[in-house]
Amino acid sequence: MTKFQRIGPLFTDLYELTMAAAYYDRNLFSNATFSLYIRKYPPNRNYFVAAGLENALDELENFHFSEKEIAYLNETGLFSDDFISYLKQLRFSGDVYAMPEGTIFFENEPVLEVTAPIIEAQIIETFLLNTIGFQTMIASKAARCMTAAQGRPLVDFSLRRTQGQDAGIKVARSTYLTGFAATSNVLAGKIYDIPISGTMAHSFISAFNNEIDAFSAFSKTFPKNSVFLIDTYDTLEGARNTAKAAKEMKKRGEVPIGVRLDSGDMAELSQKVRKILDDAGLFDVKIFASSGFDEFKMADVITNGAKIDAFGVGTKMGVSADAPYFDIVYKMVRFNDRDVRKLSPGKITLAGKKQVFRKSDERGRYIEDTIGLRNEIIDGNELMLKKVMANGKTVVPHPSLQDIRDTFKTNFESYKLIDEHTAYPVKISSRLMELQGKV
Amino acid sequence: MTKFQRIGPLFTDLYELTMAAAYYDRNLFSNATFSLYIRKYPPNRNYFVAAGLENALDELENFHFSEKEIAYLNETGLFSDDFISYLKQLRFSGDVYAMPEGTIFFENEPVLEVTAPIIEAQIIETFLLNTIGFQTMIASKAARCMTAAQGRPLVDFSLRRTQGQDAGIKVARSTYLTGFAATSNVLAGKIYDIPISGTMAHSFISAFNNEIDAFSAFSKTFPKNSVFLIDTYDTLEGARNTAKAAKEMKKRGEVPIGVRLDSGDMAELSQKVRKILDDAGLFDVKIFASSGFDEFKMADVITNGAKIDAFGVGTKMGVSADAPYFDIVYKMVRFNDRDVRKLSPGKITLAGKKQVFRKSDERGRYIEDTIGLRNEIIDGNELMLKKVMANGKTVVPHPSLQDIRDTFKTNFESYKLIDEHTAYPVKISSRLMELQGKV
Repeated sequence: MTKFQRIGPLFTDLYELTMAAAYYDRNLFSNATFSLYIRKYPPNRNYFVAAGLENALDELENFHFSEKEIAYLNETGLFSDDFISYLKQLRFSGDVYAMPEGTIFFENEPVLEVTAPIIEAQIIETFLLNTIGFQTMIASKAARCMTAAQGRPLVDFSLRRTQGQDAGIKVARSTYLTGFAATSNVLAGKIYDIPISGTMAHSFISAFNNEIDAFSAFSKTFPKNSVFLIDTYDTLEGARNTAKAAKEMKKRGEVPIGVRLDSGDMAELSQKVRKILDDAGLFDVKIFASSGFDEFKMADVITNGAKIDAFGVGTKMGVSADAPYFDIVYKMVRFNDRDVRKLSPGKITLAGKKQVFRKSDERGRYIEDTIGLRNEIIDGNELMLKKVMANGKTVVPHPSLQDIRDTFKTNFESYKLIDEHTAYPVKISSRLMELQGKV
Repeated sequence: MTKFQRIGPLFTDLYELTMAAAYYDRNLFSNATFSLYIRKYPPNRNYFVAAGLENALDELENFHFSEKEIAYLNETGLFSDDFISYLKQLRFSGDVYAMPEGTIFFENEPVLEVTAPIIEAQIIETFLLNTIGFQTMIASKAARCMTAAQGRPLVDFSLRRTQGQDAGIKVARSTYLTGFAATSNVLAGKIYDIPISGTMAHSFISAFNNEIDAFSAFSKTFPKNSVFLIDTYDTLEGARNTAKAAKEMKKRGEVPIGVRLDSGDMAELSQKVRKILDDAGLFDVKIFASSGFDEFKMADVITNGAKIDAFGVGTKMGVSADAPYFDIVYKMVRFNDRDVRKLSPGKITLAGKKQVFRKSDERGRYIEDTIGLRNEIIDGNELMLKKVMANGKTVVPHPSLQDIRDTFKTNFESYKLIDEHTAYPVKISSRLMELQGKV
């Protein structure tokens, strides 16, 4: 399996194709520039983590209509033969500027800009919004979880309740990108070479006559990787049964890695479980916890003195439950030789090709961003949008997921050095403002 | 393209496979029964709409590990050669009882039960939860939108912001199932033979020197299918420009189908736009509206006298924004000859193979459900769980999407005849209760 399965150009809203047909009939083939950005922070967010670019560029580079896709469009009866012939040979030939995956960015900042013949730029809208939008949303949520965990390892447990199959796979990638230690998702492990993690569920315990038999059976198959789930009947009794099972394992020169709590008052239970384990000399047996964890619940149990060494983070992170969609848009800002914008109430756009400039201080802390014109020069600032595709071809090889993970870590430190609870300052350059008056 | 692409058995949590390995080592191959149900109503829900079964059965019927999947499992170093050999020949050989797609159901009612050798039943857990859970969540949200629209046609506009690619495609299917008229999603149209709908975006308007030129250009390409987007600059001016464009079209014997509003105060604007259109003699030109619609916003604008003929329903429906996950679980209720349950705080399960019995009155209204034992007989009740798979093979051909849509419509009427704002009564049978005391 390739890393990203082709989804194809029919993954689009019909209006992209009807507009394309009308452009075609009017001979409108000039370049358009579209800007992809998030209009407003959703609840509980004051930064975003760029993700999804590799998937996006992969699809653009292979953009074409297959025979079956063409046949379907023909069947709809909506399109002329000329236009269908035109689609048959269509490839994506445009330029893309984008923030690399793992970049921290802010509301209204373009995270990606496309310049291409208007038909090409239009048809890819839906795909780009979906791809960059979803993965960015999850990476942004996952980064918050990393902060809340205060250095404790996190494992993605979300697969069973993500919104569909693609979501499950992309969540594993987006969380690993932000520093998660592993995922329970075996398929994502295979596709992206992410460490996989997991041991047993309640059903496993129920399949044996008692808890100790279940622990014992598991430890024989996985002598080096046993984490016992201890809350099926009674968590503290489960901890005592762990001590008994560990005694048996010790005779074979083995030791369980840990126990997992999955219900109840986690702060209190974890303290009591820690004591039971320590009293049995099991100081190295870790306490894992799962069940409804997100950044809020982790912060809460840690504040309440939980003795938890690692968290399984599932559903609420995997669907970004407190902000399950972002107001992400893809707006035309230039067509032919004309900068354009729209004025609909609450949906005003800024005209013109853009660049995002970031100023850091001598310690590397991010201080301030400026959204400016693409061709502006603002001394001493980093250019956040890089040219990643020219004439439909990627300009440089995409970094590995491991490299993206490292980049994110560095970026996140630079961001967190400022007071992350205040709004990060983002200015509009005077030249960009002037342009708006002229459009 | 087949209707459902194989995702394969690696779409699972690692613990399903580690448990399987331990079962294998202990020679545990007996049948287990697992029950799939939603533990509690999420916010704003008091019924669910079953969806996703066709996809689920399709995958189970084709369940196998490919060579590459086996190779990956081997590489992890977690599993013995014997167990890997066992997986190579593994197929799904179990029985499945399920509520047909389009069935209305309630909290704690099993929507699906699997009985299979424990390893098979265990490995498919994650896939079944994801597949049935997501599609049911969206169908349940979409049904609420259908109610709110009071007969007005709805179009799924969610693709750009669904949580990933698979979600986008499944949302189109789940919404069509509940009675949506169409989707903007071209790929879903192709895969599921759903009507597709869409005309133009703001960028199209911006690509022309003025709004009338844009309308005019579009109408020449789509003389029979023109819906003009009228809020790019000023909605009322857009309505007047529609009248002008319509005058030109009339000379060619054509007429626009409608206009679309996408921002502002929809109740007020729609009334004013209706007046402008009517004054121009355009009584048959429909008013479509989009932008942030869900059941709440539709109810609100309709109450406020909106003159809207059809709605585009997007993001908030497509991610089930007010309830972006359901507490759906898959719990072992019987293993070998023993009924089992778990007692974790807040997560108690009911042991035993089950059936859901539904009583209707002489008018066909649903009156009351009873969760009972699979082999119970409760006279005059409908058995809601049907045998859909035996020994790994589907028992009857799956109904077409159109048939499911018809079935849902009938079911939904039977449900809505009761007071849908009160909790629907669901009892536990005395025999099922007795069993719990014995486990």
